[in-house]
Amino acid sequence: MASKWIYAFDEVDDAQAASGGDWEETRALLGGKGANLGDMTRIGVPVPPGFTISTEACNAYLAAGEELPDGLLEELAAALQKVEEATGKSFGDASNPLLVSCRSGSKFSMPGMMDTVLNIGMNDEVVEGMVKLTNDERFAYDAYRRLVQMFGSVVLGVRDEPFEYVLERFRAERGVSSDSDLTADDFRAITEEFKAIVERFAGRSFPQDATEQLHLATEAVFRSWNGKRAIDYRNAAGISHDLGTAVNIQTMVFGNMGEDSATGVAMSRNATTGEPSIEGDYLTNAQGEDVVAGTRVTKRMEEMSREFPDIYTEFTEIAKSLEEHYREMQDMEFTIEMGKLWILQTRDGKRTAQAAVRIAVDMAEEGLITQEEAISRVKPEQIDFFLHPSFAVQAKKAAKDEGRFLATGLNVSPGAAVGMVAFDADLAERWAKEDGRDVIMVRPETKPDDVHGMLAANGIVTSRGGRTSHAALVARQFGKPAVVGAEDLIIDLSERVLHVGDRMVREGEVISIDGTSGEVIIGEVETRTPDLENDWLKKLLEWADQVRDIGVWTNADNPDDARLARSYGAEGIGLTRTEHMFFGSDRLPIVQKMITASIPADRVEALAQLLPFQREDFVGLFRAMDGLPVTIRLIDPPLHEFLPSFEELTTDLTDLKIRIQSAGSLKEINDLLARIEEQEHMLQRVESLRESNPMLGLRGVRLGIVLPGLTKMQVRAIFEAACQVSGEGAVVKPKVMIPLTAHVNELARQREELEEEAQAVMSEQGVEIDYEFGTMIEIPRAALTADEIARHAEFISFGTNDLTQMTFGISRDDAEKAFLVQYLEEGILARNPFATIDPEGVGELMRIAVEKGRATREGLNAGICGEHGGDPDSIALCRRLGLDYVSCSPPRVPVARLAAAQASIKEPMVA
Amino acid sequence: MASKWIYAFDEVDDAQAASGGDWEETRALLGGKGANLGDMTRIGVPVPPGFTISTEACNAYLAAGEELPDGLLEELAAALQKVEEATGKSFGDASNPLLVSCRSGSKFSMPGMMDTVLNIGMNDEVVEGMVKLTNDERFAYDAYRRLVQMFGSVVLGVRDEPFEYVLERFRAERGVSSDSDLTADDFRAITEEFKAIVERFAGRSFPQDATEQLHLATEAVFRSWNGKRAIDYRNAAGISHDLGTAVNIQTMVFGNMGEDSATGVAMSRNATTGEPSIEGDYLTNAQGEDVVAGTRVTKRMEEMSREFPDIYTEFTEIAKSLEEHYREMQDMEFTIEMGKLWILQTRDGKRTAQAAVRIAVDMAEEGLITQEEAISRVKPEQIDFFLHPSFAVQAKKAAKDEGRFLATGLNVSPGAAVGMVAFDADLAERWAKEDGRDVIMVRPETKPDDVHGMLAANGIVTSRGGRTSHAALVARQFGKPAVVGAEDLIIDLSERVLHVGDRMVREGEVISIDGTSGEVIIGEVETRTPDLENDWLKKLLEWADQVRDIGVWTNADNPDDARLARSYGAEGIGLTRTEHMFFGSDRLPIVQKMITASIPADRVEALAQLLPFQREDFVGLFRAMDGLPVTIRLIDPPLHEFLPSFEELTTDLTDLKIRIQSAGSLKEINDLLARIEEQEHMLQRVESLRESNPMLGLRGVRLGIVLPGLTKMQVRAIFEAACQVSGEGAVVKPKVMIPLTAHVNELARQREELEEEAQAVMSEQGVEIDYEFGTMIEIPRAALTADEIARHAEFISFGTNDLTQMTFGISRDDAEKAFLVQYLEEGILARNPFATIDPEGVGELMRIAVEKGRATREGLNAGICGEHGGDPDSIALCRRLGLDYVSCSPPRVPVARLAAAQASIKEPMVA
Repeated sequence: MASKWIYAFDEVDDAQAASGGDWEETRALLGGKGANLGDMTRIGVPVPPGFTISTEACNAYLAAGEELPDGLLEELAAALQKVEEATGKSFGDASNPLLVSCRSGSKFSMPGMMDTVLNIGMNDEVVEGMVKLTNDERFAYDAYRRLVQMFGSVVLGVRDEPFEYVLERFRAERGVSSDSDLTADDFRAITEEFKAIVERFAGRSFPQDATEQLHLATEAVFRSWNGKRAIDYRNAAGISHDLGTAVNIQTMVFGNMGEDSATGVAMSRNATTGEPSIEGDYLTNAQGEDVVAGTRVTKRMEEMSREFPDIYTEFTEIAKSLEEHYREMQDMEFTIEMGKLWILQTRDGKRTAQAAVRIAVDMAEEGLITQEEAISRVKPEQIDFFLHPSFAVQAKKAAKDEGRFLATGLNVSPGAAVGMVAFDADLAERWAKEDGRDVIMVRPETKPDDVHGMLAANGIVTSRGGRTSHAALVARQFGKPAVVGAEDLIIDLSERVLHVGDRMVREGEVISIDGTSGEVIIGEVETRTPDLENDWLKKLLEWADQVRDIGVWTNADNPDDARLARSYGAEGIGLTRTEHMFFGSDRLPIVQKMITASIPADRVEALAQLLPFQREDFVGLFRAMDGLPVTIRLIDPPLHEFLPSFEELTTDLTDLKIRIQSAGSLKEINDLLARIEEQEHMLQRVESLRESNPMLGLRGVRLGIVLPGLTKMQVRAIFEAACQVSGEGAVVKPKVMIPLTAHVNELARQREELEEEAQAVMSEQGVEIDYEFGTMIEIPRAALTADEIARHAEFISFGTNDLTQMTFGISRDDAEKAFLVQYLEEGILARNPFATIDPEGVGELMRIAVEKGRATREGLNAGICGEHGGDPDSIALCRRLGLDYVSCSPPRVPVARLAAAQASIKEPMVA
Repeated sequence: MASKWIYAFDEVDDAQAASGGDWEETRALLGGKGANLGDMTRIGVPVPPGFTISTEACNAYLAAGEELPDGLLEELAAALQKVEEATGKSFGDASNPLLVSCRSGSKFSMPGMMDTVLNIGMNDEVVEGMVKLTNDERFAYDAYRRLVQMFGSVVLGVRDEPFEYVLERFRAERGVSSDSDLTADDFRAITEEFKAIVERFAGRSFPQDATEQLHLATEAVFRSWNGKRAIDYRNAAGISHDLGTAVNIQTMVFGNMGEDSATGVAMSRNATTGEPSIEGDYLTNAQGEDVVAGTRVTKRMEEMSREFPDIYTEFTEIAKSLEEHYREMQDMEFTIEMGKLWILQTRDGKRTAQAAVRIAVDMAEEGLITQEEAISRVKPEQIDFFLHPSFAVQAKKAAKDEGRFLATGLNVSPGAAVGMVAFDADLAERWAKEDGRDVIMVRPETKPDDVHGMLAANGIVTSRGGRTSHAALVARQFGKPAVVGAEDLIIDLSERVLHVGDRMVREGEVISIDGTSGEVIIGEVETRTPDLENDWLKKLLEWADQVRDIGVWTNADNPDDARLARSYGAEGIGLTRTEHMFFGSDRLPIVQKMITASIPADRVEALAQLLPFQREDFVGLFRAMDGLPVTIRLIDPPLHEFLPSFEELTTDLTDLKIRIQSAGSLKEINDLLARIEEQEHMLQRVESLRESNPMLGLRGVRLGIVLPGLTKMQVRAIFEAACQVSGEGAVVKPKVMIPLTAHVNELARQREELEEEAQAVMSEQGVEIDYEFGTMIEIPRAALTADEIARHAEFISFGTNDLTQMTFGISRDDAEKAFLVQYLEEGILARNPFATIDPEGVGELMRIAVEKGRATREGLNAGICGEHGGDPDSIALCRRLGLDYVSCSPPRVPVARLAAAQASIKEPMVA
């Protein structure tokens, strides 16, 4: 395949040529990190010299049963020689030693998942040469002991604990808390002990030969591609397993060579807010892993502008040029070695939803990217984060006033979360997944092994680590509210408890965390849904609306929801469930009377009592949606949902019968008897409405046909309200929608009833209302016979929840528990059909319905009002099917606007 | 429209010419009766002269608001004059009077539904003229009083009761039981009283003018088309309401002119058995209505061959020529007037299922009709009557030995029926329809008003009437077992009880009737399903098989059913429900153990225990179906069906806990505690399996995936059995069928498991079995994705019960009670989709599935195994869709064979 296994950083053009000029292919060949190092080198960024062993070499190695491919070692020697020439140093030469790092780097970023070995080239002789050269024995032995540990651990598979115990012992003996307080002698002694540990645990001595070190490290990185952590991460992130990893060999530069040295990680823009200014952390006189591990409290980049003003200026210029080059916000690792700035790595920066939106909009306005690119760069789910609950201001204040404030940390991933404290990932996962509880995972710091628990938890708290710590990165990536580095928290893992002073929270107790402010509070704090007053988001959604070619409507059952959705950009109401209006405490008794009526007159009376309530409901909706269509679905659910349960009634009856024993007066007895009779009548009706499969029973249009007067009352309420609001000067556009139609005759029947009543109301009121009559398509038969349906329906709206249930033969409530979760886990179903429309089955029925319906009625208005209406992939499907709009819950409206725009950008050719 | 309203019988050629030469149109114009009278006249049958007023005249009359169309009266006068010339008599002329009948006759026969007036032309003068002419005063006044009553009743709307009371009084005064024992003086007096009744109740006198009589009678017949009885009948029989009725005016001939006169009704072949010999009833010296009403006990036609040998010979020759002319068995009304035979009417004869089959086969063998015509003449439902239950011989004998025999009557409609006695039609209908009870309707005789009760009842008994009585005709037509003319029965309608001597049966008590033998028995008699050893049926079905082009398989769960179905002609098993095998008392506890197992080892053990049972089941099936395919569906129903109900378990537990209070020994206490624990475990499992919509829950293939080992056990049992039976020399063709597939991946998963186990068994046994793997298509999604499904399925079989439920969104159990009946009554649904496949919805899904499936796998074998597999219209649909076979319950196999053949004959061009 490859004629060349290794590319020096300054040979990136060759690598690109070998990849057919394609940069994506180049990234696949060199890995993201290697390609970027080459790319940076190409554009003049100060990158320590080095080279990349390609992913093809890795794949060849793994395919051959872990054997290095022919020619690799020769190329390696040549590449190394080139680095020696560039640096003027010599690998393994004690007099002027070259030290190198060896890092993995695959096509896609897998933070913390892959292995790294630093300071390769150090040995017993070289360390002494370093002492002489730097005149810093402490530095030299610190570097050496790091190599021995990393090599032992990464290359030879020795566990970290024995090394850590040694360090702990030394710290204890010296009475210090940090390794940076240990002395040169300490590190010299530690190095000896580390070498002994390697010898004992690995069964071989630490290799003194620099070249052998390099070869073994390279192979270890190759092998790490198939390590369990890496495989788990790729499974979770959906990354292919056959990409392989490249290995980057790079001259070591040291941030720990004194107070004129430093190391850090920084973003070209603020990853939390998106503000266009450098944001990051660094440590003076430290190695890079100290920053990432979060074991020392880092300094903000603002401080660097004072500590190293020139270098800070240089850094900001490099950051700007990198951003311009990559047209994306950059996440850079850097080291200052004795006053000289080196960029070790750059990659596209991870960011919060808020930052993603602001950065996309800013970059478009700066002319760095197009508006369409800006739209496509924000994931629809990120918009959802804007609507993540935050704590109600009053509730949070009250909690603090009650003394429930616990601690503050870094606000690294916004949003509010409430849950039970779990101190390890397994427990967090178990509580969340198996028991369905809300969990906050609390750890001193997090490691890649903890990701499954973090994903399962509602939120994350750590007592250590900075903005770029593992915990912060993962939380941001997956949109979990997180507070990190809350140093006041003392986490006692053995006692399963956390302390702040004398306050204590045991595992299993509830805390609330605010990822936006960084606060941690004891107990539960009430959350509230925020509005959408983010200027950048507003702009992004305006741009989205310009390219979007499918309508976004909302499902709203009351004026508040309607107004909220309208403020979010909804262009109409696609679904108002009238039955939700029936559950009010002032209405339910009347509804029950209507259902249990044994003579028609009683039903007529109950319906007459309901009429004014329903009318008021509709008046509010029509006012809120002045000028926009309002789709009102007539009553849908099985009647038993409005009645007390069988068990309740039985208990009540028993109770009444006992009370009658001790009744004090004839009047009381008579009252009780009357109530018993009433309850028994109710019980009888409840019994008679019992169904073995209520989902497929007496509901929807069937109710309208079986219960005379119900449709008529609802229609009257709609049209009386419409006439009233129209009289107020508003533009009213009602769309009356029949649920659960299976046969065109049901529709024909209801239409007749509706038109008669609508005409009656309109002539009574002397107002003409421009209305439409239509139906839900939520039964497969309705979709299959949409040509007939469209003879009576002026619009159709897919109820994809029921349609999915019936098309799949799955009762959602039952199935998720019984088998659906297992189906998803085992890959029998690739996606949950209740989250994303199943394109082959349900989508096919929708396609048939639209095609047949429009064959009968040209341009038949068609929408979707199931929960899928807010799901990006489902929106893209609806657009492909030629639907006129999607309708979703108010908080999903902005998500849908963006998703619809992205679909238009992605498939611009759809008619 | 018509240039001519009236056609004389000998002008039938003109009528046919006016109908474009088309005989069906001629029948529509003249009505069946009129057309046949003309037709008989044309071929030389002795028909009393007369003419037909066309249906167009009737429709013109009704359309004009009951006004006779222009020209009709003139044509009527001319036609009448022609009859006077032919008979040499004169209408309204006392010296030589012509009397005529006036009868309705529409295109389709509506027995007893339409009105008739006889002896028109009689008046106070004519009756005296008749006395002189015939020298028979009694005859003349009998005829006159009949006219007055019929005219009063039919034309003037006087109720029958006042007339009947007069007759009753005369009979009582004379001490006789029959009108035939009344004298001439009696009839003269009765006539006077009848005229007075008419005057009093109709408010006008009986018209003395013959022409007025005729005009009024004609109009009355026209109006009777829109009478309630006629409309009800047409609704029940599916006859169009806009056909109108013709009126036939025909010279009266009298069967009551002495002992050389007679009247009767006869079939050209036996209407009960189909034997090719004249069968019928007649009465000497009687009027036709005496025979039909069943008020006198009639004589069989055999007696006529002795009483009137020459005329009997003439009649049989006429019958033969009519049969040859119409190529159908004929039902003829005849009168002998003073030794001269007249045929009054002929029409295709109604017959039992047995007779229909034999007559069709005989006629084909006689060369009268083709084999295809024979096949098409028998309704599939009639084949079903062959399999109607009959009484088990031993059980009937035992009932008689116990003294439960009640009476014998005429065996007019075969089959056995058991039910509660109901003495009126309304009650019979209410009990049967609302309460779902089995009812036998018992009446002295039946009238058209009783039909709704007869349809609702399981069987019919009358104490009066003959083989051609109303009760007998209706019962035969609708396939209801019936015993008529059981004269020993004394029915006391006021006391609601029936007596035979001192035996008594009250209304609501159960009786059993045998329509095949004519017996009535007190209480319930066990019924049994007969076999199909009718030679004519066997021949008919053999002919059917020759033209049939779709396979007929059976649904059979055990070897007995399989053998039975095979004897009925089944060509394979299309569905074996393995779960039915799980309900045996020796198996259910093991099945429960399998379901409730809390550790895998327990489940494995239970499955191992089930294996030998299942294997034996399959061994029996494979043996029974040697050489034919056996489709075995893996377990399908929700698990809770195998467990006790929640209520049962709760009651049991309460019981056990009470018993523990009074336990006598420690051992007993321990035993009870162990059982309580067991029951509580069961209760827990029952609770956990509860589903809100079990039909859409954990069942079918989902079980096979969720319960490890279940599929494997079933597959092992199938293949071990197959190997064993194959070793015995039989040809074994198992088809393993996966139920409730929604997604191809379910199938892929199960197939993998199956193939592994099947291979394992076959190599263990050293036998190679030729098997197929396939799936039910009963979920809409499976139909829509049949292209994917067919990648793994070697055959598909439509489960149209579930497919209908899901396509319609209807739970059958709930729906029939809640709304489906109403939907059918109100015509929202034209047909019950659970009886006949809905072609637009379910049929469309089937079409899609076959098309897509065969696009992936050419010639994919496809069948249907829902209940629809035995429904003729559904079979025709399956054939149109290109299915390979239908599978139905064993008793429906012969029905399906015939229906399939008829479909092939009707649509011979289908590929």
